[in-house]
Amino acid sequence: MKQVPVNQTEVTLLLDDSSVPLYVQLYRYMKQQISAGHWLHASRLPSVRRLAELLGISTTPIEMAYQQLLAEGFIASKPRSGYFVQWLADVPFALPVESAYPKGPILKRHHYFKYDFHMSKNEYEYFPMTEWRKAYNRCLQENSTADMLFYGDPQGEEGLRCQIANYAKHFRGVACTPEQVIIGSDPFPLLDLISRLLLPYGKSIAVENPCYPQQPEVFRQKGYDVIPIPVLEDGISQHELQSSGAAFVTVSPSHQFPTGVIMPISRRLALLQWAQETGGFIIEDDADGEFRYYGRPIPSLQGLMPDSRVIYLGGFSQVLSPALGVKYMILPKVLLPDYHRLKFQLFLDCTASKLNQMTLERFLREGYVERHLRKMRMILRRKHDRLIGSIQRHFGEHAQISGTGSGFHLMLHLNHPLSEEDLQTLAEARGIRVSSAAYTRMLPANEQSGSDRRSFILGFGGLKEDEIEAGIERLADCWLGAVSL
Amino acid sequence: MKQVPVNQTEVTLLLDDSSVPLYVQLYRYMKQQISAGHWLHASRLPSVRRLAELLGISTTPIEMAYQQLLAEGFIASKPRSGYFVQWLADVPFALPVESAYPKGPILKRHHYFKYDFHMSKNEYEYFPMTEWRKAYNRCLQENSTADMLFYGDPQGEEGLRCQIANYAKHFRGVACTPEQVIIGSDPFPLLDLISRLLLPYGKSIAVENPCYPQQPEVFRQKGYDVIPIPVLEDGISQHELQSSGAAFVTVSPSHQFPTGVIMPISRRLALLQWAQETGGFIIEDDADGEFRYYGRPIPSLQGLMPDSRVIYLGGFSQVLSPALGVKYMILPKVLLPDYHRLKFQLFLDCTASKLNQMTLERFLREGYVERHLRKMRMILRRKHDRLIGSIQRHFGEHAQISGTGSGFHLMLHLNHPLSEEDLQTLAEARGIRVSSAAYTRMLPANEQSGSDRRSFILGFGGLKEDEIEAGIERLADCWLGAVSL
Repeated sequence: MKQVPVNQTEVTLLLDDSSVPLYVQLYRYMKQQISAGHWLHASRLPSVRRLAELLGISTTPIEMAYQQLLAEGFIASKPRSGYFVQWLADVPFALPVESAYPKGPILKRHHYFKYDFHMSKNEYEYFPMTEWRKAYNRCLQENSTADMLFYGDPQGEEGLRCQIANYAKHFRGVACTPEQVIIGSDPFPLLDLISRLLLPYGKSIAVENPCYPQQPEVFRQKGYDVIPIPVLEDGISQHELQSSGAAFVTVSPSHQFPTGVIMPISRRLALLQWAQETGGFIIEDDADGEFRYYGRPIPSLQGLMPDSRVIYLGGFSQVLSPALGVKYMILPKVLLPDYHRLKFQLFLDCTASKLNQMTLERFLREGYVERHLRKMRMILRRKHDRLIGSIQRHFGEHAQISGTGSGFHLMLHLNHPLSEEDLQTLAEARGIRVSSAAYTRMLPANEQSGSDRRSFILGFGGLKEDEIEAGIERLADCWLGAVSL
Repeated sequence: MKQVPVNQTEVTLLLDDSSVPLYVQLYRYMKQQISAGHWLHASRLPSVRRLAELLGISTTPIEMAYQQLLAEGFIASKPRSGYFVQWLADVPFALPVESAYPKGPILKRHHYFKYDFHMSKNEYEYFPMTEWRKAYNRCLQENSTADMLFYGDPQGEEGLRCQIANYAKHFRGVACTPEQVIIGSDPFPLLDLISRLLLPYGKSIAVENPCYPQQPEVFRQKGYDVIPIPVLEDGISQHELQSSGAAFVTVSPSHQFPTGVIMPISRRLALLQWAQETGGFIIEDDADGEFRYYGRPIPSLQGLMPDSRVIYLGGFSQVLSPALGVKYMILPKVLLPDYHRLKFQLFLDCTASKLNQMTLERFLREGYVERHLRKMRMILRRKHDRLIGSIQRHFGEHAQISGTGSGFHLMLHLNHPLSEEDLQTLAEARGIRVSSAAYTRMLPANEQSGSDRRSFILGFGGLKEDEIEAGIERLADCWLGAVSL
């Protein structure tokens, strides 16, 4: 029987790293011998006692090294015969050697824009950070660690769902119980869940054109037929919706993205009746319905009718911060059994952090969210007005503005020989972030070109009032100076 | 032309709630009149001036109420004619009346078990909560709010990805760069992403049988053929895998769930070669590979070969707590372009909370995770031994144990005339949570019954050592006493 060629000098020389336990050094050495093919398949290893004598060490580290090699399958044990090298497939590469724990660098990448007209940015200095920290610390101190650190409710913490039901009722006219509230970290997991929930009810969904392209893409990837329906002056064309035969529709009735159109009450009621009659469902996206600068917020579609067939999507990204990662949807009661079935099938957890949920519950209960909302409405209203004034001053008759009065952005339109893409690149080269509206449009290829009308989405939340004026002045200089219009 | 019948007395009586702004009271009144059909379609509203005189109030609140009704579409404005009631579809229900902001109750539901052998619970009193709170507070204090509160990197914060790459290398033998690390809140969003990423590469996936059923379900719902392959003594049957023709396979090689089988090195190498030769991918689930109680952790499959075709899944639910919501996967470099394309298409955000990510980065960098891991290994080893001893003492020859030595659970088997479901119910009635292994099996219907061998998954992390002994004593009493065995 072949014996493993244990080279005493080699092993002894190897056993010199006093920072690593002896058995680990032995184990690594033997693993390497086997992996490299130096110790052949079926060769017998020296007995524990014999190797101990050979190396002049105790039997314990050798026994431990053998046990580890055994567990990983490098050697096998035969009763009353000893340990044997196992056959490994011909390994066409070197097995890795274990290395020490490196402390890596912290890379940071910066996308810096001097003037950032990002459509959903906010001035976060106004966020009540001290109060948030205190609420977080109180949560951690007042709850038992066993309650806090184990898995939470997959649907979202019940206390937060109660607060959200109240909040949505008061601020958005939404009618629901906490049982209808489903919490997630951001729009995607909730939209994905909706695309799974609706599968038994139909296979075609109408979407607003233009719109935020995440919604059509989620449903397209789930195998739905996605039907773009134009947005008219009073919202999605209900004539085209009716004739499309779609089973579902996504709308943003209180502040259509990106046009800013508000759907009037008559159209809302007609839409609710459409859902009632066809057995369809409406997905109401209401990301920033809390922010309206002249007059009160437009109440949600969902709450207009008892037990409406509306899936309502709301969240705290705009109201507080996207970094908290709390978004919610409110399901019609009729979909709750489907939701619970899916939750069990897929072993779903809540994607929103439990600790953040508990902190936010407290924040809502103690009135901080309401207070912050009131403050931000005033601040954003001033910025909104300043952006409109700046565009009028610096672009004059060259630009038109639409979609004002709500949310965090408006639209700027101008006629220009350069493409939207080129104009965006020009602006970025001058340190200005603006977004062309191109990505929100679903046009047949042959309609893509032709006109020289260019449209951009300009957010006003992230800049200070004076920066808005300076940014627009530079943007006008950059765009209007690029060619003689 | 019809005029709206404004009833002066009624309106005046209504305007008595001094806690609500006058214009809101007017707006609500008029909205209700229109919704209820008291004010007919196309009727003209009194002019602002006339109504102001009639009610004896200033014109401002009336102008504001009209503007709000206009924005919501209850009335329309015709130049030089005034305001007219809009046509509403025949509303077969009362439009909701806005209500005050209720402060809801906080419901709490308790699922209390005196002896909770949950398979992934831990004793969270050992969690370094004070250090976590301090790290969180320092994050919030040291970073600018603008950096912290805006959207983070959709792939996960770069600093944390660096720390995770180091951690995975040191503790799990994983070879990767931070560019390959994708962070998410929990297994589902990452598995869902994998199911989308792999679509272009094949449509059939082999899964271990038994296994955690989330994986097959995610792939099944995405339209894959799911092929269950039996788990043998050395892991998934590679003979059956080869002949299945599957393009992908999910395995848990370092601690198979639920059997606890460890896949030996020869099988691991064969599996890597299978992926190499077929162009397939291996999904390596390594939820608790850090915890091995006699000997060192078994290094991951992913790191055995340079640029292996392995998608590695790791996380901090077991190491720290599931409530932090940080899970990660490590993609082969060859899949990174697909990932980035999908990320843009679906407008993905990171589901893990940015604030928790930043805190965890600091926690890893400062060595708290490593220290906690060492401590928990010792504590869990004692509990593991105690559970085995307790079962031997109280069940004697009636039970067999398998899958020991790693992780947070082992398996207990016994022959019993009652079904696993009934035994579980019996235990729960006595305040004991144990989980039957039934849900991990994918058996053809005709193999479901027959034997009277019953298998259970018993976690040992969540109970104190003495509670383990008492819980097992009660369980033996409950099960062995139920019938004479």
